[in-house]
Amino acid sequence: MTLRVAIGPSSFAQEDKTPLQMLEDSGVEVKPNPYSRRLTEDEIIGHLEGVDGLIAGLEPLNRRVLSSAPQLKAIARVGIGVTNVDFEAAAEFDVKISNTPDPPAAAVAELTVTALLALCRKLMPTNAALHRKEWKKTIGAGLLGAKVLLVGYGRIGRRVAHLLRAFGAKILVCDPFIQQDSLCHGEIQVNLAEGLGEADVVSLHASGTEVLIGSDQFQQMREGVILLNSARGELVQEEALVAALESGKVAGAWLDAFWEEPYTGKLTEFDRVLLTPHVGTYTQRCRLDMESEAVRNLLRDLGVENKTE
Amino acid sequence: MTLRVAIGPSSFAQEDKTPLQMLEDSGVEVKPNPYSRRLTEDEIIGHLEGVDGLIAGLEPLNRRVLSSAPQLKAIARVGIGVTNVDFEAAAEFDVKISNTPDPPAAAVAELTVTALLALCRKLMPTNAALHRKEWKKTIGAGLLGAKVLLVGYGRIGRRVAHLLRAFGAKILVCDPFIQQDSLCHGEIQVNLAEGLGEADVVSLHASGTEVLIGSDQFQQMREGVILLNSARGELVQEEALVAALESGKVAGAWLDAFWEEPYTGKLTEFDRVLLTPHVGTYTQRCRLDMESEAVRNLLRDLGVENKTE
Repeated sequence: MTLRVAIGPSSFAQEDKTPLQMLEDSGVEVKPNPYSRRLTEDEIIGHLEGVDGLIAGLEPLNRRVLSSAPQLKAIARVGIGVTNVDFEAAAEFDVKISNTPDPPAAAVAELTVTALLALCRKLMPTNAALHRKEWKKTIGAGLLGAKVLLVGYGRIGRRVAHLLRAFGAKILVCDPFIQQDSLCHGEIQVNLAEGLGEADVVSLHASGTEVLIGSDQFQQMREGVILLNSARGELVQEEALVAALESGKVAGAWLDAFWEEPYTGKLTEFDRVLLTPHVGTYTQRCRLDMESEAVRNLLRDLGVENKTE
Repeated sequence: MTLRVAIGPSSFAQEDKTPLQMLEDSGVEVKPNPYSRRLTEDEIIGHLEGVDGLIAGLEPLNRRVLSSAPQLKAIARVGIGVTNVDFEAAAEFDVKISNTPDPPAAAVAELTVTALLALCRKLMPTNAALHRKEWKKTIGAGLLGAKVLLVGYGRIGRRVAHLLRAFGAKILVCDPFIQQDSLCHGEIQVNLAEGLGEADVVSLHASGTEVLIGSDQFQQMREGVILLNSARGELVQEEALVAALESGKVAGAWLDAFWEEPYTGKLTEFDRVLLTPHVGTYTQRCRLDMESEAVRNLLRDLGVENKTE
């Protein structure tokens, strides 16, 4: 009997048909999202009728939904977060859950390094000046020999370290869950206070919602430090960051994650602060890779041979 | 007898005293630039009186100057270009000439990758929008799997390749002076037409002043290509580039080298064109490394033991 797979995210295979092709080539029947937007609880219940597997976005996949889909055997989330899934109910109904943590790590790490380089080389003001026909040469900083403290050394932190090593940066790692022997050659494990006292650049890649960087931590930093936050807004105390920018302690900062999104706060007033609207994973390639990985995960969990590999 | 070394560039050791310290620690007598600007021909003749070695900038070091400095044994240029030196006269008077090609390569390559990443991820418009409190998520391109054609594979091209490999880009190399076996693993040698037909990004690192990229070459490129030029303005035909931007063939471009500098031309009108005022080598570290390397070169050529190493 032909297996049926429902598609949750309305954006699935929109930019590139490959992931859809992978499903079709494997002989499963594909049921597209009929609404072209995120499904409500009642809509996803209807959508899952007679379905064996789901390519999932952020639809509610709670106990009520899962209990009404007795045939469902696997959910493959396109992305990292799975807070929309009731894991207890999924275990009870024997539904396998997967996600795609690797492609986002590459894209977020890439944007982190992009932002750092742009700040170091004063790209924004220099480009703006020349567009006003002002030829102003200024000396920037390079990454060669720069000390970069990574707070958090999971998938994204590791990938950032990998990229920065190519530029000749020195990597300090602060992560309570990491042992020195799991670091790469040349990387140095530090506690937060040590790291803040040494680093030219501090980049946050930690999880959780606890404040890591408040006014005490800004005190410990070197004069003229650069702060990068692509992780979570809550990790940094906003008022303390504003004060550290005003005092000159922080020379530049980049934020892709905020306390409230869309963000319209005080940091929009600082030219030295680079701001992006939570687009760390927003590359064509990352979308394609996440969708392809979700398809592979789903076919594996449904016991279907993947004919495309 | 104590050797005497004259300093040419007025900026020498201004940001960091280390190179000056290296000279003093080696026991030579240092004669600083007395004018705090580039010396004229007559001034450099006076400056070289009784001097054994010169840390050189772009002062005129022609036959007249060299013939009037019979004690001079070595000239160490801080930087790459040595068009200010009469090599024939230097050989005749037995003056050794050195330059510092490596530190600039790292800094220029770094700025090239900075510009490419910023263009790919639409950093300038995204940042500007959020500073206007507009939260606009747009999908960018990543370097993972992107095909980058390097036209010219000297020190800078190689360093760009090294950096891009870390991001997972595919490197195509067009350089008539390079054999396939001197490329790194995974790099593919192409001729210009092949490379232009395949590349998502074209980056110029060639020497010379001949036009490499004119309207014929833009024809051969893929739709939506990104063009990077940190080498020389003359390599690209300006009108052809403007036409290719207007037609949409070229999605984005970065220039750090121009047909005339300071540049105030047509490209300043394009938001999709990133412009920097020939600052490829303008990092603190690059200045320091070039100056330190020039000091080492000079001490070596004067037969002085370098006590700092």
